[in-house]
Amino acid sequence: MTSRARPAPPIITLLTDFGTQDIYVGVMKGVILSICPQARLVDLSHAVPPQSVAIGAWFLRAAVEYFPAGTVHLAVVDPGVGSERAPIAVVTERGHLVGPDNGLLHAAAQALGIREVRALENAELFRRPVSQTFHGRDIFAPVAAHLAAGMSPEGLGTALPGLAALPSPAPRREQNSIHGEVIFADRFGNLITNVPAELVAQLSPAGASVDAGTVSGLPIVAAYAAVPPGSALALIGSWGLLEVAVRDGSAAEQLKIPVGAPVVVRSSHGA
Amino acid sequence: MTSRARPAPPIITLLTDFGTQDIYVGVMKGVILSICPQARLVDLSHAVPPQSVAIGAWFLRAAVEYFPAGTVHLAVVDPGVGSERAPIAVVTERGHLVGPDNGLLHAAAQALGIREVRALENAELFRRPVSQTFHGRDIFAPVAAHLAAGMSPEGLGTALPGLAALPSPAPRREQNSIHGEVIFADRFGNLITNVPAELVAQLSPAGASVDAGTVSGLPIVAAYAAVPPGSALALIGSWGLLEVAVRDGSAAEQLKIPVGAPVVVRSSHGA
Amino acid sequence: MTSRARPAPPIITLLTDFGTQDIYVGVMKGVILSICPQARLVDLSHAVPPQSVAIGAWFLRAAVEYFPAGTVHLAVVDPGVGSERAPIAVVTERGHLVGPDNGLLHAAAQALGIREVRALENAELFRRPVSQTFHGRDIFAPVAAHLAAGMSPEGLGTALPGLAALPSPAPRREQNSIHGEVIFADRFGNLITNVPAELVAQLSPAGASVDAGTVSGLPIVAAYAAVPPGSALALIGSWGLLEVAVRDGSAAEQLKIPVGAPVVVRSSHGA
Repeated sequence: MTSRARPAPPIITLLTDFGTQDIYVGVMKGVILSICPQARLVDLSHAVPPQSVAIGAWFLRAAVEYFPAGTVHLAVVDPGVGSERAPIAVVTERGHLVGPDNGLLHAAAQALGIREVRALENAELFRRPVSQTFHGRDIFAPVAAHLAAGMSPEGLGTALPGLAALPSPAPRREQNSIHGEVIFADRFGNLITNVPAELVAQLSPAGASVDAGTVSGLPIVAAYAAVPPGSALALIGSWGLLEVAVRDGSAAEQLKIPVGAPVVVRSSHGA
Repeated sequence: MTSRARPAPPIITLLTDFGTQDIYVGVMKGVILSICPQARLVDLSHAVPPQSVAIGAWFLRAAVEYFPAGTVHLAVVDPGVGSERAPIAVVTERGHLVGPDNGLLHAAAQALGIREVRALENAELFRRPVSQTFHGRDIFAPVAAHLAAGMSPEGLGTALPGLAALPSPAPRREQNSIHGEVIFADRFGNLITNVPAELVAQLSPAGASVDAGTVSGLPIVAAYAAVPPGSALALIGSWGLLEVAVRDGSAAEQLKIPVGAPVVVRSSHGA
Repeated sequence: MTSRARPAPPIITLLTDFGTQDIYVGVMKGVILSICPQARLVDLSHAVPPQSVAIGAWFLRAAVEYFPAGTVHLAVVDPGVGSERAPIAVVTERGHLVGPDNGLLHAAAQALGIREVRALENAELFRRPVSQTFHGRDIFAPVAAHLAAGMSPEGLGTALPGLAALPSPAPRREQNSIHGEVIFADRFGNLITNVPAELVAQLSPAGASVDAGTVSGLPIVAAYAAVPPGSALALIGSWGLLEVAVRDGSAAEQLKIPVGAPVVVRSSHGA
């Protein structure tokens, strides 16, 4: 008998605004494992602020590229549950996305390479009766499980021409500066901006400084350790985006810079 | 060589009031995987309020039906640890329940169909020495793991005639009204009541309204979208129970209705 | 064809100060599963207070002994990321530890039995480019995954003579007393001290009492149930350490004893 590699089990990630204090997430996992018992379940986050589709979309976009090809990403931040928005699945070059068509999936889908979008119409796949308030359990979890188990997306429903996108504030490049904004504060109080590393690199080979909110002239450094503990700094963080941080501290608390605050990167030579 | 389906791995769910900031839950998982390395572990919730057996019982009851037959549900909300209450396992039509006999398991066991109740007496299964304060690690986790690994419940200990139940406030039906109460507020601030959908359906084919706490006359709608954002409503939620909610908001915060508040459903024709 | 036991899948535990609201932990899991798809992932805690290496070290030490031999423990509490401290792996008698060499791994490594320490130098194992701020994703997660997949530690980098340790406050034994301190408060408000059961047992076969912070004369009991609800007590907790607790309550809140407060165990016969 020849040796056979055991095939890798299918992976399903979960991203929601359900929190983990309630049992909503556990129930979705029960539904998934009832359909696809081999599925490996990985929580991305369940602490998306309630109904914050934009933050959910950003989390999903930032996470999907780290997972193996073939992963099914199940995302539910769904203020419109029970109303007009369609449930969809997106087939990409590197896996599937399942969730509401409210903009949540768009950036991640683009990052993974969109092949086709399907409406979730085949009610035989759903848990029935389908509730008006918990499509995560009744529609999205079962469909994600069927896809993980190998079902062809053609059986889900009709192909759609595209999927909903969110307005995303793009950073603006001027001659000697870049104008962006703070999009997120993480647990450490690091302030993540929408200014990508590439744009900063274009600006000034000789160095640049950052104004954020009411704070100005922050140095762009290579690592936290470049400044003394307690000092503010800017650096290219692990998402490839400019971040404002305080070494061994919380920039969000210490600098009082809110999400949405303007961020300006200035070339050392210009003004 | 013929193809063989790979058997589904055993599933163990975990429900506790241990929180996830400490390592108590991780330690229980280490104990389980030391005995049953194939077990799939699914967290239901570890945020049951400390020692709130009633909320733990309700969570467990609400979750178990979504898991495959054969699942082992391990639940530990155990204010009496180290004292009188017995550790038990319940064999049901659709899996096993393991935990303290303090009412935590009763409603879930009934929902799954009780076959037999066993005292956990076989100390050879336990982690030793058994601590006075962490039976989750020393008794319940090992027993759950042995059951998941296929052990017969007969080896656990003597059969018991039944298991402890909690007083549960049943809704009261009158001619033109139903009288219940708020039993839980979830992360979204939705107020879940003990009034089941069937009782509401019996009341009034022509519509009904809901009084909750100091708020009266809430419409019973089919979905959040039936009212404007910020408005209060009642609806049959995803647990099959009447809920009071605020569209795109928190009913718990906005309406100031606490858990335990009275809820009255009134027929449109009566008073 | 003879029956073959299916080998147990490799286990990787994760301990960080990243929290679970962000996606940092999920991203690390994606990186791991991309390299070792069979790995079983178990969260120990991600709620280590930001950059609290000492608490992380204590959590890790307390948890590792409950996992099967061969487990890979991945721990990242890393205020010095991007600066001088080396990334390391420790080969022990009962598994591997992977993380920064800042004291985080030392107590756990000693508990498991240190065989050798390796610097993580083989950049072919890393995710590239290696960021300055997220070695958990770019160095530690890939190395843990490679070890779980069976890679020999020799391929990681050069052998080191040892690893960094933290100053750990040892309890001091006097003739009729033991002098220690509170090292941690758990979710229940139990105050865990650095006084081990063995030291208490040596002190007084005839009983002892405990002073903690401004509270004095607490009885050492066998279980919470030995005192009335709401009363303070001391007992040997599930970690084998003396704890100060309040039955059915929170000692941390009720007694106002902070972490670091002195704890004195006095023999009933002495003073």
